[in-house]
Amino acid sequence: MHGQAEFGKLVIFGVGLIGGSFALALKAAGQVKEVVGFGRSLSGLKQALALGVIDRIGTNPGHEIPDADLVLIAVPVAQMPGIMARIAPYLDEQTLVTDGGSTKMDIVAAARECFGDKVEQFVPGHPIAGAEHSGPTAARAELYRNKKVVLTPMPENTVLNLARIRSAWEWCGAQVYELQPAVHDRIFAAVSHLPHMLSYALVHDLAQREDSEQFFAFAASGFRDFTRIAASHPEMWRDICLANRVALLEELSRYQQQLNELSLALQANDGERLDRVFAAARAARRAWCGEVEK
Amino acid sequence: MHGQAEFGKLVIFGVGLIGGSFALALKAAGQVKEVVGFGRSLSGLKQALALGVIDRIGTNPGHEIPDADLVLIAVPVAQMPGIMARIAPYLDEQTLVTDGGSTKMDIVAAARECFGDKVEQFVPGHPIAGAEHSGPTAARAELYRNKKVVLTPMPENTVLNLARIRSAWEWCGAQVYELQPAVHDRIFAAVSHLPHMLSYALVHDLAQREDSEQFFAFAASGFRDFTRIAASHPEMWRDICLANRVALLEELSRYQQQLNELSLALQANDGERLDRVFAAARAARRAWCGEVEK
Repeated sequence: MHGQAEFGKLVIFGVGLIGGSFALALKAAGQVKEVVGFGRSLSGLKQALALGVIDRIGTNPGHEIPDADLVLIAVPVAQMPGIMARIAPYLDEQTLVTDGGSTKMDIVAAARECFGDKVEQFVPGHPIAGAEHSGPTAARAELYRNKKVVLTPMPENTVLNLARIRSAWEWCGAQVYELQPAVHDRIFAAVSHLPHMLSYALVHDLAQREDSEQFFAFAASGFRDFTRIAASHPEMWRDICLANRVALLEELSRYQQQLNELSLALQANDGERLDRVFAAARAARRAWCGEVEK
Repeated sequence: MHGQAEFGKLVIFGVGLIGGSFALALKAAGQVKEVVGFGRSLSGLKQALALGVIDRIGTNPGHEIPDADLVLIAVPVAQMPGIMARIAPYLDEQTLVTDGGSTKMDIVAAARECFGDKVEQFVPGHPIAGAEHSGPTAARAELYRNKKVVLTPMPENTVLNLARIRSAWEWCGAQVYELQPAVHDRIFAAVSHLPHMLSYALVHDLAQREDSEQFFAFAASGFRDFTRIAASHPEMWRDICLANRVALLEELSRYQQQLNELSLALQANDGERLDRVFAAARAARRAWCGEVEK
């Protein structure tokens, strides 16, 4: 269907859900010829190789980066600067780099520092794809289909580089949006990072109690849904929270103010106020749900 | 399979999910002969009648209560005292009464006031059955199968009355537990009422913003799970929060303290502390989930 692959050689750092699915999707679309994978764990890399997620295991960035057309960095955000520093010396001017990190201000800052005058070749991205499972076995070509991917281009990016990264994600079936890095971080602090922290906090508070068993014994479906994200990967979320701490602290503070107001309403037996808050929340949740689940 | 029905005449106040499912389950088990339903909405009662949830629509408690064997009050908690006051004058000494309210201290206090020296006939209960849907059409005989029902007996209850209410729920397929009313309210404040308030608070905080659309546009599956309970019925949850305000305020205050600590850790860039909290929460959530979903 397409005469030629858009990208010859793709190098991915991190062969798990995000990186592996990107590779599989571009392969399925016939848009890459060869995929080379780097990773921290040899067993993960071997798994990715056996599953056809990657074609080769990379060992030396000095060998693999110079003739790469596209590099995706899909590791926890705290490890991204280290990878950028490792590949920067070998980056040829035709090579594009993007990432899959959940925070963007910190990644943009790291990219400027690591890539220097090659930073125009790095287009920051954030695929919004749920990650209940992880690792190469969770990767699938369809992961990004009809999912949102947010790019947060920098002024340094050329129009062409931005367009090529955009098209790579579109080949994966994603809907591509653009946001400024600061706007991205503020939005995701509110709709993702804060809820994770709140869910962790509730479960932690219960788990610390001497009689915690009695609480968990009677927890039901509402608790199950509310705390599902408290089963997320602790190190990954620690890193995200730290990477986005300024925006997250701002959101946390707003939320604490909101709880103070609800506490005062409850102390004052102010049912009308509770009703207004709950009803407005329900209306907004239902409207959102209708949009999302339509 | 059973020669005789345990209860001849069942009267239910509220013919929705909770009351309707109780009636259907006891009918399916052959443990009631006749079900009479009372309710606020005539259309709901007619629906319940058409669906076979009830056999007759009740209009006058003075006619229906004296020869009832069992009465279930399954209306929002704030409306329960009114129903108790309405039926108390007609309560014969062989009639048992129970309820399906989510709070118990307030219900026990109302029962003592309304039933006076007949309070031994009232055994307070709380079936833990999710209520994503409501109304007579949501009622089903299987709702309580393998679900927990908490009874919070009062010192006034006789052993026989308690045993008969217990067996009614067991006929519905439920696992019956007993807790003291204060313990019940503390547990459900923590695992149910607080999470509802937290979820409402998050959605409300976002919905109030001028640029709320942008936030909702990028909310994904973690947000969806965390906020599912924010689509719950506002009046019902207002009433539950008010009815259990002492225990809920205590839990809310603990939770606010927990958030303060996380905020301080974040301000101090204390990744180790975040990691400890998140990891402990994940371990507890996974242990609970394994127990619940096994």
